[in-house]
Amino acid sequence: MARHSRPSNGGMKTLIIELDRESHIPLYAQIATQVRELISRGALKLGDRLPANRELAETLGVNRSTVTTAYDELTADGLINSQVGRGTFVSAVPAAKPALADERVLASPMPWSALLPGERRDQWMSGFEGAQSGKEMISFAYALPAAELFPLDDFRRSVDRVLRKEGRALLQLGASNGYSPLQQYLAAQMALSGIHVGPDEVLITNGCQQSLDLIHRILVRPGDEVAIENPTYPGAISVFCGNQTKYVSIPVGERGLDLDVLEDILAQRRPRLIYTVPSFHNPTGVTMDLAARRRLVELAARYRVPIIEDDIYGELRYDGAALPPLKALDRYGLVIYINSFSKVGFPGLRVGWIAAPRIVIAHLNAAKQRCDLHASLLAQAAICDFTRHGLLAKHINRSRKAYAQRRDAMLLALERYFPEEASWNKPEGGMAIWVKLPEAINASQLLLQASEQGVVFSPGEYFYACSPQAATMRLGFTMAGPAQIEEAIKRLGAVIKTRLANLKKHRSVGRAAAGRTLV
Amino acid sequence: MARHSRPSNGGMKTLIIELDRESHIPLYAQIATQVRELISRGALKLGDRLPANRELAETLGVNRSTVTTAYDELTADGLINSQVGRGTFVSAVPAAKPALADERVLASPMPWSALLPGERRDQWMSGFEGAQSGKEMISFAYALPAAELFPLDDFRRSVDRVLRKEGRALLQLGASNGYSPLQQYLAAQMALSGIHVGPDEVLITNGCQQSLDLIHRILVRPGDEVAIENPTYPGAISVFCGNQTKYVSIPVGERGLDLDVLEDILAQRRPRLIYTVPSFHNPTGVTMDLAARRRLVELAARYRVPIIEDDIYGELRYDGAALPPLKALDRYGLVIYINSFSKVGFPGLRVGWIAAPRIVIAHLNAAKQRCDLHASLLAQAAICDFTRHGLLAKHINRSRKAYAQRRDAMLLALERYFPEEASWNKPEGGMAIWVKLPEAINASQLLLQASEQGVVFSPGEYFYACSPQAATMRLGFTMAGPAQIEEAIKRLGAVIKTRLANLKKHRSVGRAAAGRTLV
Repeated sequence: MARHSRPSNGGMKTLIIELDRESHIPLYAQIATQVRELISRGALKLGDRLPANRELAETLGVNRSTVTTAYDELTADGLINSQVGRGTFVSAVPAAKPALADERVLASPMPWSALLPGERRDQWMSGFEGAQSGKEMISFAYALPAAELFPLDDFRRSVDRVLRKEGRALLQLGASNGYSPLQQYLAAQMALSGIHVGPDEVLITNGCQQSLDLIHRILVRPGDEVAIENPTYPGAISVFCGNQTKYVSIPVGERGLDLDVLEDILAQRRPRLIYTVPSFHNPTGVTMDLAARRRLVELAARYRVPIIEDDIYGELRYDGAALPPLKALDRYGLVIYINSFSKVGFPGLRVGWIAAPRIVIAHLNAAKQRCDLHASLLAQAAICDFTRHGLLAKHINRSRKAYAQRRDAMLLALERYFPEEASWNKPEGGMAIWVKLPEAINASQLLLQASEQGVVFSPGEYFYACSPQAATMRLGFTMAGPAQIEEAIKRLGAVIKTRLANLKKHRSVGRAAAGRTLV
Repeated sequence: MARHSRPSNGGMKTLIIELDRESHIPLYAQIATQVRELISRGALKLGDRLPANRELAETLGVNRSTVTTAYDELTADGLINSQVGRGTFVSAVPAAKPALADERVLASPMPWSALLPGERRDQWMSGFEGAQSGKEMISFAYALPAAELFPLDDFRRSVDRVLRKEGRALLQLGASNGYSPLQQYLAAQMALSGIHVGPDEVLITNGCQQSLDLIHRILVRPGDEVAIENPTYPGAISVFCGNQTKYVSIPVGERGLDLDVLEDILAQRRPRLIYTVPSFHNPTGVTMDLAARRRLVELAARYRVPIIEDDIYGELRYDGAALPPLKALDRYGLVIYINSFSKVGFPGLRVGWIAAPRIVIAHLNAAKQRCDLHASLLAQAAICDFTRHGLLAKHINRSRKAYAQRRDAMLLALERYFPEEASWNKPEGGMAIWVKLPEAINASQLLLQASEQGVVFSPGEYFYACSPQAATMRLGFTMAGPAQIEEAIKRLGAVIKTRLANLKKHRSVGRAAAGRTLV
């Protein structure tokens, strides 16, 4: 056993840590436990700075990674936190446990860090939430329905009706494939857009995120490659580009998925599936035309690669004629179609569905059962009643009108307030406008300044599986009224223009400086 | 291209199948497509028998597995079905698709069987459902709450209240860790049984099945080994003993998990986790005593293996003093505690939770987000309101009384009507009694005869990951009233006695026969 200490130094406390190198407890766990106890005992206080990893590693004579792991564990426990460029500080005191407090000092804690996977991406949702941090904000960050449009009374009556009618059955365990009146309704509804499936070819899920996860489980094995659009929905990136899955990304152009690139990729590699959002693509808002849809299906058929068609925005069209979903054009049974009530209805309910050939549904159903037995019956029955009474159609019509107005207000404001170097599309539907800024601008950095002005948005980077374009942003237009939108775009335009002006100034200063050295 | 045909033979039709051995379409897909078309065209009719795999394989000059795969695909599509000992028959005609019907004949279908995993277990839930098949049955098959006890009006009022109070927030997207008033409530509630965690150490899930799946995702990598009880909850078997996970099974004795065996296993191998149901174990009903609980925690600590404690039946105690959960005895932060409202409340809602150290919750939360973003907010808020108004406690008290009565009625009836060779325990809580029958009896076979008598139960086999004990059965006592229970146990006892008598007769005939050959 060796005893190590550091002299007090620049606001830092003396840290006495004893390591037992013969213990079966890993060194990092010993360090973490002792730092935790120093904090508990009050030897280290809130705001105290800890030594840098390298320093402590040297003092203790251990690898730097040992200290990093110990700090990671303490950070995960919320006890310390690191501030870039400043150092690592005590940020909390461990909660005293009422019982067994004396014994806890003797018990060495479970070394969780060693058991858990190193990689931990997928925090994109909390990233979005973080952007709103308390203040009164005008939010363009989300592609979500406007809650103020929710027909609450209608919905409440639907819930009450189904509970009165069949409450006992809805509260009891149900079938894993779904609430059968909802499967029937969805089969009938999809037939209107040319998708002909039986109710038993429909699996109810907890929304598109789960649908993607279930599809991934049955179709993708470790080492397999999938083809996804770039940029795309971050939830799909987290499912398809996680541990052990390889992916190829297909650029999305003004007409959607680049089919020439896709064809090359299909010919050269054999991806397990193609994931696409053909209507009002997230985040770019583009829609594939009929010819492109047909070509995509034929390509997939030729190379025998299934298509996952995500039609979550499909019903939110404000201009132009409706186009058939890929699944309606599919003569081969190769399209797995996913959709949900989250954009047209209520995301908090978590109800979505998959339409696919029976053999695929059988596998998905087994996976669904293994995941969580079945989707909440109350949510399924409530939305089913709501739709069958025509209330969803009514709500969608009302939302469409409001969203079209909001989109138009945003387009007008962009024209008026954004610098002429910026460009954007006019989406025929969906929930967001995709803006390309001058290349010198980093939208993530811009977000900080924008949020100081009370406006938040999604930096385009979030949506790229690879080669992120930093000078892009997604502006969701559904969650603010036209006047708010104008005001927020005005502020955002001003922030961008200031930034551009600064960049030009620096650049000319830079040039001038470069000029001087040349002279 | 070769043309093959079979002559008509014993009720079988001539089958003309043409295989193109140079096509890129696999042979099995060609066979499946053509059989499908023969059925579509009416060349094969409902009830027609198909040739046996081996026969058709010989006729066509292909491997037997090629025909098996083709038949599997047709079976999955519901077009044919196999009856043990009788053969394979046409069981449905493919639905005519309204559009594109002519083109479909030309388009070769997606070869899904080749893309989907071969293994497909996990159909245990549909197994359970199948057992009830329409008829009026007295069911001992499930460990589920009695729906007739649900306080529907109370629950409906809770739902109405939360929708009126915060409907817009509940229908909008929420946080992936859960509805925060529910996290707070659960943290406070668990403190009453000695589990001291903060609300941020609680993750809301869609029930224990999802909790197990999430835990599996973050802790178990391909090739890892887990330690599970044998027998155990079939949903845990489907999560932990699926593809690529190895497992060791620990026998469950009269005092629960066999700790001597566990200790050997911990010393010899290093499983990633131990899964256990310490209170009212499913299916055996046994409860670990305090000493065993302490020893289990210390063993896990010594070998640094996390314990997954499934406490889903914990509150359903009818006799004896409450015991602390393992997590309350855990000085090391090694127990991941899971529970849900499915047994004490309403399984159809799909709301459960996990209590674990913060670092574990952070990983689980990321996995939850990747799986389905978050649990249904309506379900979470409704059960939260219901509990906060004391209605769940009231419902649990009422259920406890009813279930205790039903358990006692079952014990009495077992004593009266079951053969003396059978044995069973008297569980202090939970939802089922575990019966051991004389070894010669196969409970799965018994189920057929029992269901003819209007009684169903779960054969013990369902609960074994390995070495299934065929002469065991789980009798759930919660879903029928005392009088029904007596009647059904009487019928079941009669079925078993008849079976036993027949077996004895056969055995003595067998002995006599054996005797003769010896003479």
